[in-house]
Amino acid sequence: MAFTVNTGFGTQIRKSPYFDATVRWGAQGYSVYNHMYIPRDFGDPEQNFWNLISTAILCDVGVERQVEITGPDAARFVQLLTPRNLSTLSVGQCKYVLITNADGGILNDPILLRLGENHFWLSLADSDILLWAQGIAIYAGLDVTISEPDVSPLQLQGPASGQIMQALFGDSIMDLAYFWLREVELDGIPLVVSRTGWSCELGYEIYLRDSAYGNELWERIMVAGQPFGLAPGHTSTIRRIEGGMLSYHADADRHTNPYEVGLGRLVDLDMPAEFIGKAALRRIHDEGLRRKQVGLFIEGEPLAGPNSEFWAVTQDGNTVGKVTSAVYSPRLGYNIALAMVDIDSADIGTRFEVLMPQGAQQAMVVDKPFYDPKKQLVAA
Amino acid sequence: MAFTVNTGFGTQIRKSPYFDATVRWGAQGYSVYNHMYIPRDFGDPEQNFWNLISTAILCDVGVERQVEITGPDAARFVQLLTPRNLSTLSVGQCKYVLITNADGGILNDPILLRLGENHFWLSLADSDILLWAQGIAIYAGLDVTISEPDVSPLQLQGPASGQIMQALFGDSIMDLAYFWLREVELDGIPLVVSRTGWSCELGYEIYLRDSAYGNELWERIMVAGQPFGLAPGHTSTIRRIEGGMLSYHADADRHTNPYEVGLGRLVDLDMPAEFIGKAALRRIHDEGLRRKQVGLFIEGEPLAGPNSEFWAVTQDGNTVGKVTSAVYSPRLGYNIALAMVDIDSADIGTRFEVLMPQGAQQAMVVDKPFYDPKKQLVAA
Repeated sequence: MAFTVNTGFGTQIRKSPYFDATVRWGAQGYSVYNHMYIPRDFGDPEQNFWNLISTAILCDVGVERQVEITGPDAARFVQLLTPRNLSTLSVGQCKYVLITNADGGILNDPILLRLGENHFWLSLADSDILLWAQGIAIYAGLDVTISEPDVSPLQLQGPASGQIMQALFGDSIMDLAYFWLREVELDGIPLVVSRTGWSCELGYEIYLRDSAYGNELWERIMVAGQPFGLAPGHTSTIRRIEGGMLSYHADADRHTNPYEVGLGRLVDLDMPAEFIGKAALRRIHDEGLRRKQVGLFIEGEPLAGPNSEFWAVTQDGNTVGKVTSAVYSPRLGYNIALAMVDIDSADIGTRFEVLMPQGAQQAMVVDKPFYDPKKQLVAA
Repeated sequence: MAFTVNTGFGTQIRKSPYFDATVRWGAQGYSVYNHMYIPRDFGDPEQNFWNLISTAILCDVGVERQVEITGPDAARFVQLLTPRNLSTLSVGQCKYVLITNADGGILNDPILLRLGENHFWLSLADSDILLWAQGIAIYAGLDVTISEPDVSPLQLQGPASGQIMQALFGDSIMDLAYFWLREVELDGIPLVVSRTGWSCELGYEIYLRDSAYGNELWERIMVAGQPFGLAPGHTSTIRRIEGGMLSYHADADRHTNPYEVGLGRLVDLDMPAEFIGKAALRRIHDEGLRRKQVGLFIEGEPLAGPNSEFWAVTQDGNTVGKVTSAVYSPRLGYNIALAMVDIDSADIGTRFEVLMPQGAQQAMVVDKPFYDPKKQLVAA
């Protein structure tokens, strides 16, 4: 759904500190994420994809709200929140984690940043984990402080992002390793930068720690990136589906468990530490999977845009699952999709019908991340 | 912000079971609320307002997600969630309540429905109270089950809504009292109806308990309402501001306490029962208010639409608060607003400047709910 930015429904939905900049730089469509506007359209999603994989794009992801957890018991509390074993998480390191409820269902899939021994940020997908964490803390008996700080991330993603970071922060930034973070300043603007993102390309996230500098930071980065072909952009549905990355609410929700989406590696049932959902996840693990997320190629004309509804996946007329995310990849020359299907129908090469508004289409289960269709179709 | 419904950003934002019906009936703009689309524009917000106050409108408020709380300790748990004294809440009764955090900040302002001795629904404003409640329950040591059931409310609001309910459910529905509920069926469609709403007009909420019937229920109500002038519509910003009703995130958030928004009546510090935020709210109460929500008349040309930003409120060049919601009331012939201002500037008759994008304007504090401007302006 695309917004027209000239009318308003009031202040009920917040604007990021980069909102005016994104309008100035040509944003034409916004969605809503964590109760805030997020630009999702700069006129041509396919051009945004090519910009991302060929040079670099700057994306307003101020909607990635941070849950800050501090205090003497912060580390213990954060481990309670996720099935991932955090015993090896160093100060200055980031990890992709799942937040699970008591039933083992996924509530969010944030990046966890460890800024200090007892100082953590959860950089959120679209759900109020601040409320989840503060609710747990009421009776957890742990000494922690949980808040949403004034932090507004940008994503700088694409092969040229390294050179742009170098231009902004000097050579020293080049040794920032994948999934590590650093506290830096840019002409006095307080920042945290991490080598993370949501694009499967080389990329960085730049966390502004004072929203008063939103416009200044955005312009500063666009100027530094100009020689390297930096374009204003937005998170690319094409690229993230190619990479098989989850979009929360679309590909996973609280009724989805980590194993179903192939993220069992983020669950450590054997660690001594307790975490919420441990018993449920052990049971789910021992009972085995009933359904599983798979990659699909869908035949037919290029899709005009992403699916706005879940499409039924059928075999011999029986529904065996649903397409959760689908899009046309101009690079692969194919419609690609993520689908949740019965475990008996999840093998590579399995063929389906996908029921789309524009009619039924043939589809086949393929490996993800997605690569050369021809090779996979032949292999099958 | 208005949507164009012909493009999509995927399945990340959910559609209500009435979504197709609202498109069919002329919805032109949607916003996002509790991770779902909500129609907010049927072409003319002012006509929607006149429809509401002269006949009746049917509104898709499927975004009002229900948090269902059951189990032996359900009543005790629900009381933990709110400062309002629930000791007199009967089965079949509803109450407007505030959900507060440990600091006494407002997390949500739902309608609480008591369907049974140990069966409650919280009909939510825009925040994930399901996560808050489930988080608290992890270590609360109470025997409760907390879930989001398949329930999708509609609002039938306006002076003709009683006759339409009579046409739908027969004479017996006429004795449904204000803020009471009843479990009913409509041609086999399972429903709960309550005499509640968000319009300050006679009105009902109709909670569909099986989303498969969304289209059928909507059409059924529109047919029954046709003789009474029922129009498809949306919650009216004009009417709710006239009535001084809160819009969560706009007029209140987790940094707002109940006293600041004039809802001290929903806080019972003297009841024996514990609730989350009790100590903080006692402290806030004893220290006295620092700021307070007031009603404003704003001079000048009729506003084209609601404010999409918080507008600074100044006196002699000093900022003393912010306008949180503002709109032109065609009935009052005046721009009306809700503002949060320093307690020393909150008296009726206090004059301000409001800094709007279109320039500064004179404003004056008046009583809310809003009534005849002339009378108030003379009185001041």
